[in-house]
Amino acid sequence: MARKVGIIGLGHVGAAVAHGLIAQGAFDDYVFIDTDEAKVAAEAMDFADAAANLPYHATILVNDYQALADADVVISALGNITLQDNPQADRFAELPFTAKEVPAVAQQLKAVGFKGILVVISNPVDVVTSLYQEYTGLPKDRVIGTGTLLDTARMKRAVGQHFSLDPRSVQGYNLGEHGNSQFTAWSQVKIKGQAVCDFLSDTERAELEKTAIMGGHTVFYSKKFTSYGIASSTIRLVLAIVSDAHEELPVSHYYEPLQTYLSYPAIVGRSGIIERIQLQLTAEEEEKLAASARFIQEKVVASLGRQD
Amino acid sequence: MARKVGIIGLGHVGAAVAHGLIAQGAFDDYVFIDTDEAKVAAEAMDFADAAANLPYHATILVNDYQALADADVVISALGNITLQDNPQADRFAELPFTAKEVPAVAQQLKAVGFKGILVVISNPVDVVTSLYQEYTGLPKDRVIGTGTLLDTARMKRAVGQHFSLDPRSVQGYNLGEHGNSQFTAWSQVKIKGQAVCDFLSDTERAELEKTAIMGGHTVFYSKKFTSYGIASSTIRLVLAIVSDAHEELPVSHYYEPLQTYLSYPAIVGRSGIIERIQLQLTAEEEEKLAASARFIQEKVVASLGRQD
Amino acid sequence: MARKVGIIGLGHVGAAVAHGLIAQGAFDDYVFIDTDEAKVAAEAMDFADAAANLPYHATILVNDYQALADADVVISALGNITLQDNPQADRFAELPFTAKEVPAVAQQLKAVGFKGILVVISNPVDVVTSLYQEYTGLPKDRVIGTGTLLDTARMKRAVGQHFSLDPRSVQGYNLGEHGNSQFTAWSQVKIKGQAVCDFLSDTERAELEKTAIMGGHTVFYSKKFTSYGIASSTIRLVLAIVSDAHEELPVSHYYEPLQTYLSYPAIVGRSGIIERIQLQLTAEEEEKLAASARFIQEKVVASLGRQD
Amino acid sequence: MARKVGIIGLGHVGAAVAHGLIAQGAFDDYVFIDTDEAKVAAEAMDFADAAANLPYHATILVNDYQALADADVVISALGNITLQDNPQADRFAELPFTAKEVPAVAQQLKAVGFKGILVVISNPVDVVTSLYQEYTGLPKDRVIGTGTLLDTARMKRAVGQHFSLDPRSVQGYNLGEHGNSQFTAWSQVKIKGQAVCDFLSDTERAELEKTAIMGGHTVFYSKKFTSYGIASSTIRLVLAIVSDAHEELPVSHYYEPLQTYLSYPAIVGRSGIIERIQLQLTAEEEEKLAASARFIQEKVVASLGRQD
Repeated sequence: MARKVGIIGLGHVGAAVAHGLIAQGAFDDYVFIDTDEAKVAAEAMDFADAAANLPYHATILVNDYQALADADVVISALGNITLQDNPQADRFAELPFTAKEVPAVAQQLKAVGFKGILVVISNPVDVVTSLYQEYTGLPKDRVIGTGTLLDTARMKRAVGQHFSLDPRSVQGYNLGEHGNSQFTAWSQVKIKGQAVCDFLSDTERAELEKTAIMGGHTVFYSKKFTSYGIASSTIRLVLAIVSDAHEELPVSHYYEPLQTYLSYPAIVGRSGIIERIQLQLTAEEEEKLAASARFIQEKVVASLGRQD
Repeated sequence: MARKVGIIGLGHVGAAVAHGLIAQGAFDDYVFIDTDEAKVAAEAMDFADAAANLPYHATILVNDYQALADADVVISALGNITLQDNPQADRFAELPFTAKEVPAVAQQLKAVGFKGILVVISNPVDVVTSLYQEYTGLPKDRVIGTGTLLDTARMKRAVGQHFSLDPRSVQGYNLGEHGNSQFTAWSQVKIKGQAVCDFLSDTERAELEKTAIMGGHTVFYSKKFTSYGIASSTIRLVLAIVSDAHEELPVSHYYEPLQTYLSYPAIVGRSGIIERIQLQLTAEEEEKLAASARFIQEKVVASLGRQD
Repeated sequence: MARKVGIIGLGHVGAAVAHGLIAQGAFDDYVFIDTDEAKVAAEAMDFADAAANLPYHATILVNDYQALADADVVISALGNITLQDNPQADRFAELPFTAKEVPAVAQQLKAVGFKGILVVISNPVDVVTSLYQEYTGLPKDRVIGTGTLLDTARMKRAVGQHFSLDPRSVQGYNLGEHGNSQFTAWSQVKIKGQAVCDFLSDTERAELEKTAIMGGHTVFYSKKFTSYGIASSTIRLVLAIVSDAHEELPVSHYYEPLQTYLSYPAIVGRSGIIERIQLQLTAEEEEKLAASARFIQEKVVASLGRQD
Repeated sequence: MARKVGIIGLGHVGAAVAHGLIAQGAFDDYVFIDTDEAKVAAEAMDFADAAANLPYHATILVNDYQALADADVVISALGNITLQDNPQADRFAELPFTAKEVPAVAQQLKAVGFKGILVVISNPVDVVTSLYQEYTGLPKDRVIGTGTLLDTARMKRAVGQHFSLDPRSVQGYNLGEHGNSQFTAWSQVKIKGQAVCDFLSDTERAELEKTAIMGGHTVFYSKKFTSYGIASSTIRLVLAIVSDAHEELPVSHYYEPLQTYLSYPAIVGRSGIIERIQLQLTAEEEEKLAASARFIQEKVVASLGRQD
């Protein structure tokens, strides 16, 4: 019945997601939502000006919540670029902004009866995903954050460069918070058919983990935002959902054992999180995960309290 | 022997072109060139962070002119966003900046022996394309501006919306300068198998021509730049070149009858402009074209003089 | 709500259509229907064996008519290759076969309540499309034959080769029956911004029209079937439908002025034929069209009679 | 400098490879080679008839060995469908045919000075790849067989279906001969972040291994050939080569430790096999690999002797 996606927030990230999707003909119908009426109209017009030179047709509606009623996926890319630009690139600096926006958006999605999958990019993503689930009342399995799918890609980029390998030939994950408490689960990282630990010392792994993170910072501090890395993560997740791929992806979802949203690999399909998986982490990694979970939980509790 | 493209200037437009190309696996090797070392490194890193989640591999080199020696295509997307942002959106406000940059870039391309096709987006595009041809000494057929390929897309968008038609089902062109002296050659515009003049009065055509242009302004004034429309035009042109498509496209090329670079449909392939075509314009349209040519010529002469 | 397509008949053509669609991730869900249970299972398995090496996920169901209830598009590619292989490549040799199959398929589509668009490739396509519309009771606008979209592509190939032009830069159509009574509407064919008649004599045009047709015969007599040309036509039509493109395409639809299915350009979108257009043909072309229409009508009447 | 590929043998497999590549615009120039002049001309024409309806331009040359001189990749898809169709689907039944064809093709490739990567699909693939390397004199790293990249995809399909997982989320390989002596290296197969052995008993694994193989047989016995699975494997390999991806793929290459061509994961890029990797197989798996190697070696020796 045609593929329809909504994108809430047409800043740099939302627009890059839209560009990637439109250029490959991924969806038939797009609904762009943004409180900045002029900005969202401009983005829609810019894509309309691309249409004559693209191989696929796209229909774009602007600020029409009603049209989201039967969307397959709605992507929250809202954020505040002014708050993002703080010295520590602290994603929580945006929380006062997003925590206020989320209830309003959630209310609109409820009002139109949106029944699809809600994909959250907005930072701090684990907390915001949790808030969206709370305020929309959608089942936990249907509200997913992009989480460490991006951080995992950064780790794969760093490891791939170190070993002259395509990052797609690096297996493994970054887990936990899409933020400072995250970590690379080195026990799970494999290259060339072997555990990467066979090739790298502890020190080297720590260096690579830092290289992965610093890469993101390099992007952020020079561009004042990051866009293509996060857009590609989002597009991969969204395609896995709409095509019902049952693909394993490290994304932020409600992780029962620790009672919070955090990133951990899960099987993703049209109904959202299809299945939770169980890694065999080291004790140290389990502790890092638990610490990351506690950090997220505290922020979620504080954020929900803030609304009272 | 693999496809290689260079992009000079990684601002909003250059980056959007890179995004479109990389996401569809259009080239194997990319060379990003920008005088802002931090910015270009950031863009390359952002794409590297996308790699693990993309279907195609891309190799990106940064600020390596030598690597352009065997590039199929080099795209000039350099510009100065501060100068672009003037009240009239006058593309000539950028000329003092670009006129200074072009000789330096041209010198580098000559130095490495670049023999491919040079595609120019930088504004004012007809003048800048002319300067590039002059300074690189490349044959005229191998230096092409995106020109009114974008304006034509805007006209098709406006006409398409008016008639509820896919813009790809609107035939015709905007001709002349990619600037204020351009015009829609209404005698050439066809929809639904008929001349559009059968459907529209003079007044209605003038309205649509204005709607097309205003759309671009809407984008510009809200975003402070335009990106997806121009990126799609560029990608279409670049693919026609590298695949040797012999496709008819309205692009800025050296138009012999009027002795200047301006946009007019031409047949495009691997050696650049393969063939000039001859439209049957009305006398009025021919006069508009000549006027547009004179305007461009004066600016070219002035710019070349400025270098002395 | 995800894109779903049904393909009825997994012979060479149906399988090539499926390959093209699956390789580009065009649909999420595929339903393959064929009376040869072993063959259709084999094709589905062959695609399943491709899945690990493809960028997009596809779900394939086999011989499940019920799953067609909410399909966007159902494609009839059924046919009888033994009957196709006759000395004159007469598409009517297949009619006794297809005329028997159509009511059965139509009955199944009615039974499951299929409400999408029915795209017919099966030959003789104008007659078979007519029969499908009759037997399914679907609105005429929702039953479309690929018709001369393929013949038009062949004309564009022949003209393009003659002038060293990309066939996509040739405008125009073949009209009427997808069979021997069709013709190229030379008055509508344009290249390089001019009527092709400005470049070609009557004799040359007749030669090119023959070259276009002979190409198809060359394929047929050597391969014993044609597949990639028709598959690409079908895919283009199907994408125009599902994306609601409002694209102008010469396809077989119910042409009111002559009271029959035949190929003529029309605007195509999600609800099928969105709008009929009106070409300004020459009197001779109008007569050819009328003759082609009469031929099709007679065959339709005979076929429907045959069912009584 | 544009991407160029040669395809030798335009049977079902060669044509399906061409279809997949052309439909996605993977190469600019295609050279089709086949001793059946009518057949290869027909395939080229069928693709030419698709061109007007495809988003990318492709140039196709027919039976022009000279044009292969600067090809990035040449794919050998030659074979004999009559010999393939034997009761045991024994790939060695084709060897007398291919062993005779290979020296002739190799001679032509040498004569034109082909310096790219030779990708071999022709069966029995490990032996034929070995013969191609011998007769062309190309470095061993530049002659690669598709090998068990297909069998691995079949294993992933079977395991994926068993666990309701996208086959792309199954990790692991089939190793050794692309033939009866191959085996699944179960010690390497992972799903959901764990060794698949944690989920499956020995008996269940043996069942799945059989299911994987039987799937291929189902395709073969019903279609009389397999095409989409092998085409997708080939396309993935070819794209990894031309884009210099440094991707890890289980393909047939010269495996030094056992002194023969066989399938084992390797890192693949523009210069062919970039790096050999070392799995940590079980002793039993190592023995299976050695047995498979001995089998291939004997056949190679016999084939080379046959030529004396």
